[in-house]
Amino acid sequence: MAEVEIGIGKSARVAYGLDAVGIVPSRRTRDPQDVSLAWEIDAYRFDLPLVAAAADAVTSPASAIALGRLGGLGVLHVEGLWTRYEQPENHIAELSEIGDKEGQQAATERLRALYESPVRPELIARRLGELRDAGVVVAAALRPQKVRALSQHVLAAGVDLLVIHGTAVSAEHQSRRSEPLNLKRFIGELDVPVLVGGCASFSTALHLMRTGAAGVIVGVGSGLGDRTHDVLGVGVPLATAIADAAGARMRYLDESGGRYVHVVAHGDLQTGGDLAKAIACGADAVMVDAALAAAQDAPGQGGMWPMDVLHSDLPRGRWAPVTPTGTLAQIVTGPGAATGTGLLNLAGGLRTAMATTGYATLKEFQKAEIMVTAAS
Amino acid sequence: MAEVEIGIGKSARVAYGLDAVGIVPSRRTRDPQDVSLAWEIDAYRFDLPLVAAAADAVTSPASAIALGRLGGLGVLHVEGLWTRYEQPENHIAELSEIGDKEGQQAATERLRALYESPVRPELIARRLGELRDAGVVVAAALRPQKVRALSQHVLAAGVDLLVIHGTAVSAEHQSRRSEPLNLKRFIGELDVPVLVGGCASFSTALHLMRTGAAGVIVGVGSGLGDRTHDVLGVGVPLATAIADAAGARMRYLDESGGRYVHVVAHGDLQTGGDLAKAIACGADAVMVDAALAAAQDAPGQGGMWPMDVLHSDLPRGRWAPVTPTGTLAQIVTGPGAATGTGLLNLAGGLRTAMATTGYATLKEFQKAEIMVTAAS
Amino acid sequence: MAEVEIGIGKSARVAYGLDAVGIVPSRRTRDPQDVSLAWEIDAYRFDLPLVAAAADAVTSPASAIALGRLGGLGVLHVEGLWTRYEQPENHIAELSEIGDKEGQQAATERLRALYESPVRPELIARRLGELRDAGVVVAAALRPQKVRALSQHVLAAGVDLLVIHGTAVSAEHQSRRSEPLNLKRFIGELDVPVLVGGCASFSTALHLMRTGAAGVIVGVGSGLGDRTHDVLGVGVPLATAIADAAGARMRYLDESGGRYVHVVAHGDLQTGGDLAKAIACGADAVMVDAALAAAQDAPGQGGMWPMDVLHSDLPRGRWAPVTPTGTLAQIVTGPGAATGTGLLNLAGGLRTAMATTGYATLKEFQKAEIMVTAAS
Amino acid sequence: MAEVEIGIGKSARVAYGLDAVGIVPSRRTRDPQDVSLAWEIDAYRFDLPLVAAAADAVTSPASAIALGRLGGLGVLHVEGLWTRYEQPENHIAELSEIGDKEGQQAATERLRALYESPVRPELIARRLGELRDAGVVVAAALRPQKVRALSQHVLAAGVDLLVIHGTAVSAEHQSRRSEPLNLKRFIGELDVPVLVGGCASFSTALHLMRTGAAGVIVGVGSGLGDRTHDVLGVGVPLATAIADAAGARMRYLDESGGRYVHVVAHGDLQTGGDLAKAIACGADAVMVDAALAAAQDAPGQGGMWPMDVLHSDLPRGRWAPVTPTGTLAQIVTGPGAATGTGLLNLAGGLRTAMATTGYATLKEFQKAEIMVTAAS
Repeated sequence: MAEVEIGIGKSARVAYGLDAVGIVPSRRTRDPQDVSLAWEIDAYRFDLPLVAAAADAVTSPASAIALGRLGGLGVLHVEGLWTRYEQPENHIAELSEIGDKEGQQAATERLRALYESPVRPELIARRLGELRDAGVVVAAALRPQKVRALSQHVLAAGVDLLVIHGTAVSAEHQSRRSEPLNLKRFIGELDVPVLVGGCASFSTALHLMRTGAAGVIVGVGSGLGDRTHDVLGVGVPLATAIADAAGARMRYLDESGGRYVHVVAHGDLQTGGDLAKAIACGADAVMVDAALAAAQDAPGQGGMWPMDVLHSDLPRGRWAPVTPTGTLAQIVTGPGAATGTGLLNLAGGLRTAMATTGYATLKEFQKAEIMVTAAS
Repeated sequence: MAEVEIGIGKSARVAYGLDAVGIVPSRRTRDPQDVSLAWEIDAYRFDLPLVAAAADAVTSPASAIALGRLGGLGVLHVEGLWTRYEQPENHIAELSEIGDKEGQQAATERLRALYESPVRPELIARRLGELRDAGVVVAAALRPQKVRALSQHVLAAGVDLLVIHGTAVSAEHQSRRSEPLNLKRFIGELDVPVLVGGCASFSTALHLMRTGAAGVIVGVGSGLGDRTHDVLGVGVPLATAIADAAGARMRYLDESGGRYVHVVAHGDLQTGGDLAKAIACGADAVMVDAALAAAQDAPGQGGMWPMDVLHSDLPRGRWAPVTPTGTLAQIVTGPGAATGTGLLNLAGGLRTAMATTGYATLKEFQKAEIMVTAAS
Repeated sequence: MAEVEIGIGKSARVAYGLDAVGIVPSRRTRDPQDVSLAWEIDAYRFDLPLVAAAADAVTSPASAIALGRLGGLGVLHVEGLWTRYEQPENHIAELSEIGDKEGQQAATERLRALYESPVRPELIARRLGELRDAGVVVAAALRPQKVRALSQHVLAAGVDLLVIHGTAVSAEHQSRRSEPLNLKRFIGELDVPVLVGGCASFSTALHLMRTGAAGVIVGVGSGLGDRTHDVLGVGVPLATAIADAAGARMRYLDESGGRYVHVVAHGDLQTGGDLAKAIACGADAVMVDAALAAAQDAPGQGGMWPMDVLHSDLPRGRWAPVTPTGTLAQIVTGPGAATGTGLLNLAGGLRTAMATTGYATLKEFQKAEIMVTAAS
Repeated sequence: MAEVEIGIGKSARVAYGLDAVGIVPSRRTRDPQDVSLAWEIDAYRFDLPLVAAAADAVTSPASAIALGRLGGLGVLHVEGLWTRYEQPENHIAELSEIGDKEGQQAATERLRALYESPVRPELIARRLGELRDAGVVVAAALRPQKVRALSQHVLAAGVDLLVIHGTAVSAEHQSRRSEPLNLKRFIGELDVPVLVGGCASFSTALHLMRTGAAGVIVGVGSGLGDRTHDVLGVGVPLATAIADAAGARMRYLDESGGRYVHVVAHGDLQTGGDLAKAIACGADAVMVDAALAAAQDAPGQGGMWPMDVLHSDLPRGRWAPVTPTGTLAQIVTGPGAATGTGLLNLAGGLRTAMATTGYATLKEFQKAEIMVTAAS
């Protein structure tokens, strides 16, 4: 690790963002058709290493089903609008109208009001049922502080993968007011595999792996206009966070005698190139939000917002309008049309990146040579 | 210390600004309610490690009282408009009018004229009396060159904390024209604790600590549109300046057999994240200016200016209009409303940063792991 | 090589772009007239180390002839519009009209349609014949995947230099569907010297040299608005890519007992200064595209596009309008007129750079001292 | 020296620009009145270490006289408009008119035409006589290639300091066409001290010092919109160039048994802070151009241009309009008025920088501690 002394009293590691990274072609090239993007976690196999984040502007039951059919995985937020309202589509459409006429702040205020309506257990059951009926993998997300209150409803409704996702989640939450959730015990008692995060360092990732999680989400905050770094000063550039978690994965593989915990990268991943770089840094899969919120048929209906916007006294981010880039299907599997920006055909971009640099599987691509560009 | 040779004849240390810093979550998290932001200097205890800079656009008697009641500390400038005029509010309102109609330069010229009126000792007594009557800690600031002329009036009026603040203050001012102020002797003879700065290096901080100061202010220039770096070329990026001063604090603690001198970071600190980063670099508290000058009820009434604007032949900065972000109370303790930018609820941002990364007290948080981002 | 650990699980080399590089004057200066820009590859000698890229917006038969007469080399793309249409000029003019009236996306769509017409062998013969009749060196380019299908027509038509150019070309392409092209065998059986690329690392360059190529093209993607880095995440900053390839050239010179394989730098080279920096990093010659597409008399007729735009499901880049900088002759050999930006008189800029820093030949200039600027 | 391998075949030094540099306050401070800015070269003593560049937009006989009276030194270009025309003021006014009405390119073309009129020896004599009559130090500049043709007229007219200034000047110019100027012999035979440059490395500076020059100008290209780096790719960031030349000064002091050759920094120096940083990197004085061309009473009359604009086939830079910042006197010695940007009162900025950081003389200030800011 490159350590620098930022001053006489303090050292810091040097960290790298994905924007600093470039993938180096190897001495081989391949046909794109020979490249496999397949990924497995627990009993579930996916054609694409692409997970849609549990954010209301990104993932609805409908978009999760569509993404599942394209080969990816959509995660529905159990504390989102779909479990609070019968027809959240109407409310979301109203947000876009407000945003258009009265501005982002008014839309954000309306949004915050919408989330004051309670989560309804029968809607949890209904929404997850819709996913199951469609034949896709059923994944649902909770914030750690709501696991105790809501997980029973999720489990009762039936779920294939449980996602516990907060700004920064640790294996050891401390509280003087209430008995904190013991993640290890909770996960140990579940039959369902758990994906947990965000985390952003070797030791946090390792401790989360030791809870028995099937995967960890790497990255603090979200990519939907989230302002976690401004508001909290907390954050680790993503290339380093991914590589550290990949290091923890290797360590845990060794100490557990062979348990492989998946690393899912989550940050401001927008283009096929971003996906390729995240995997070349060591990720098994990527969690995407803004890139999918920009679909013409995205649940956000022309708007996007991070779930962090809900914090009552410390909101991070706001409702913001989105310029549509294409349909969900185009964004995920192309074709790229005439824009040529990398925002469409994420899977194609990743596949061609691997072919161009000579790698046939995601596992091999995780070991790709990379360079970081010196700033000038 | 990372030294680089910038050329065959010259070495330089590599220094880091707060913008390069990110705080790394630890393997623990906490409830925000369990985090303490309390800070003590000498006999005075504050709920928040937040000091309002001694600048007329930031701190009036009224705003110092309001901030004191919110848990922070306001420092009144003894050479400011409140000790020159009975009702400076009227003059400040006039500045905004001029700025609005005739532009920033005209307002700046008017501002400079306003400061030509003499400081009146009876107004010093009256203003400090207002603070004392309100029951808040009474803190007043002087420039080093005015300590001799004005400190007697301040002490006579009664003060809890004396602040000696200039662009760059040293323990050893040299002058051929007049006997310079011997800071060590001056502080030694006082009963009142003294906060002194700005300083920006290990050795300057250490020498200031040896004068007997209760605290040192770290940072050269101010955050109110000050142009010290442009005009003078002088400056040390703040993360490094804070860490160096924290190093001096440790050294002095050792050499003095246990005297702890507080490090107050002062620079362009705007968001809760900025505060968190300053403390994670080693500061005990932060001194804020532009962030508070942006209050709807700030003394600057829609304008801000650094006290450096007064230099007759070498002004640094100017009167500039401010976009209000919220009330003083909202800026300090929230709620954050729907903006989500980190400019509101500084205390909440700091508290959540500590909770999220697993630290319960400021002292622990000073040792938080940090990273610096490599540019690309 | 400077390696950094970007995280516990991953290392990366630090790489440099040409924009970070500056050439350091030596203790000698020279008359520009005494500087030679001559360059030889195989039996062909050129007055200028300047190759026009095989892109339809840059190189037509007419522009290749003009550039050849100025001392450089134009490479005609065998899969371009000139081998698909009798009079592509009309179609290109139409693109500019569409771009003007309907926007870049419409022009890009029309462009993609144009490339659906098949390549006609008799037009290959006619176009290369035009070059040969004009007395300039005949160079033609193919993508690696089309070598098998089209090289026979090129060889039959007569060619002095064959260029095999793709986004990233390796000596060892692997395919499960078809027998891949064995570059070494293909080149070994040819009488014509081959220039092959793009490549971007020591090992890829070395393996390409071992195929028997006369030269390698260094650089991934193209400079005509190509978005390879965004779309694929693939790329190596050019200064490092050139220097690595120059290292491979030295290694191969040694292992082959004296075969010198030329390194042709290809990237976003725009000014005389860019050319000088590429050669000072180790290139033998430079391949230019956008700089020449900006000629008043360029084949693109006011538009430019990378050949990558043609990928059906993953286009990189688009048709984009160009602001003309001067005639082709002015761009290449000046005079610089009154713009003073370095976009005109590329050869003059290179010549003066060498004179100013004291070098008389390109071979000497490859060893020039360079500096990289630390970012701030 | 920090060397990096930019690739396997090439190393480079890491170099720093002045913008990366900050001056660190020492543990002392001083009264500005106690700071001396005096500087001596040969028999000439100046109150200010400020040299106006030999560029027609910066230095006329009148401005050189004015600057001389303020304590600095103006250098008249012997190949400029004042030695070609009786009343160049009229022509310069015309340029501003053309620039205003027809644009920069038209003005640049007219400018180039103006320089086609021959230099008239009797005007050299008259202009230098004006300086001498005014009682200021008489300094005149020539490009190296014109020394042979014009120096006799300069010497005949009488000059105190001769300046030989080109884009990059070496001690060893090589030419196959004509016998090159032997700088060492030329300087050896002169009675007049010579200032020579630009140079930008330790070895070039050292060799120029060995010619017997009284001072070297450090910096390649000029600050008046010059595009040398773009056009030629040549350049060394100024902080490193200055420090290297200061290293050469020390080496030459040793090898010559005590001859001190002055280092004059020349680049895009605009503010008092820039001047301070240049001296803190090791310069004895600074050569300024754009900052002075912005005077209301500057010879450029609202326009500025580098002398490099004259190269017939490779112009660098153009005529460009200037926003006036104040009078020449205000720019040099203040007062700073209400702008507070550091563009006015360069001497005051330098003086205060030295006082604030605790240095009393330029010699001491050359050893000031500096930091470089890590980019983020």
